[in-house]
Amino acid sequence: MHVSVMFSGGKDSSLSAILLEPFFDVELVTCSFFLVSVEEVAARTAEKLGFSHRVIRPDISVLEKAYEMVMQDGFPKNAINLIHKSAIEYLVSDERVAYVADGTRRDDRVPVLEMPDIRSIEDRHRVQYMCPLRGFGRAAVNELVKQHLVIEEGLSEDVIKADYETELREMITQRHGPLKVKELFPVHVQSQVISRSKA
Amino acid sequence: MHVSVMFSGGKDSSLSAILLEPFFDVELVTCSFFLVSVEEVAARTAEKLGFSHRVIRPDISVLEKAYEMVMQDGFPKNAINLIHKSAIEYLVSDERVAYVADGTRRDDRVPVLEMPDIRSIEDRHRVQYMCPLRGFGRAAVNELVKQHLVIEEGLSEDVIKADYETELREMITQRHGPLKVKELFPVHVQSQVISRSKA
Repeated sequence: MHVSVMFSGGKDSSLSAILLEPFFDVELVTCSFFLVSVEEVAARTAEKLGFSHRVIRPDISVLEKAYEMVMQDGFPKNAINLIHKSAIEYLVSDERVAYVADGTRRDDRVPVLEMPDIRSIEDRHRVQYMCPLRGFGRAAVNELVKQHLVIEEGLSEDVIKADYETELREMITQRHGPLKVKELFPVHVQSQVISRSKA
Repeated sequence: MHVSVMFSGGKDSSLSAILLEPFFDVELVTCSFFLVSVEEVAARTAEKLGFSHRVIRPDISVLEKAYEMVMQDGFPKNAINLIHKSAIEYLVSDERVAYVADGTRRDDRVPVLEMPDIRSIEDRHRVQYMCPLRGFGRAAVNELVKQHLVIEEGLSEDVIKADYETELREMITQRHGPLKVKELFPVHVQSQVISRSKA
């Protein structure tokens, strides 16, 4: 069985792929609007992890809509969820995709698909959506990451990751300058995956 | 890392153990009040799956409390959840247990631990509680079961499984006869795991 795992180059999507690996033929998929070369960062990480990788490019109107949303809301949660949902919709509109997965954990709030969205996507596209980490809490995920991945941590401003936030921040920087980004996005610690653990 | 997986001999707990197997040292644990020899059924299935197995025996007062609950409620949901929670509490009070898992799926309602209970158990006992199937829908679970397990299906009255329902039904049968059981428990299709798939 073949599964497409939404991949940001971060530890959660990497670990999700590793958990599925014994049971599925895993392909990593990164969403890019080509505003920042996030797809190149993701491709390099995917190669180090030993997974095949491809890039999807939904229409730029998705990022525009998310931009309007974050400007109106004053915080990025809904905007990021919108991009995530749109990226998955885009991916599964490819009829060859039967299983799609992402790195959502038990305690995650963003990006998270709500149950009505999951059911709607599964029914309309005849796919199965899976979150291998959905039943794992923070400490269990951290322990599994420690066992299987080498990571580097830094503040979200400094780490280039192939997540939705990166391009959303870039669009706002281009239009309003970096101060606006600082105002809208909370600074948080991001992780970047370097490789698999040797052990 | 060592994990104790709550095991009923059914397909969900079996599949959960199989999903954890590449990442953890798996032990199956069956709860029995020794009213029915459910622990023997479970031990046989565990052996066929190739996992180590042990039995826990919480105090019979747990089953008594569940019995009172189902008689008062008129349906078994809360009673079964009570036994499940009590069994996990009993298991993790053993200080050697650091990771505990069960077969809860995305769409399950019984038995399911609620988030406040999960947090409370994790904090008080310094354990991590994991549900490997929590992020998987029905069709994905069925496909994984097909790939990895040989199962037999039957009505809940005919299949002897090491689940909480079996002993609760027996206690009610002993005290009120089989008709009372039919009145309180919906008849549903149960699965019994025979072995792993050869493929």
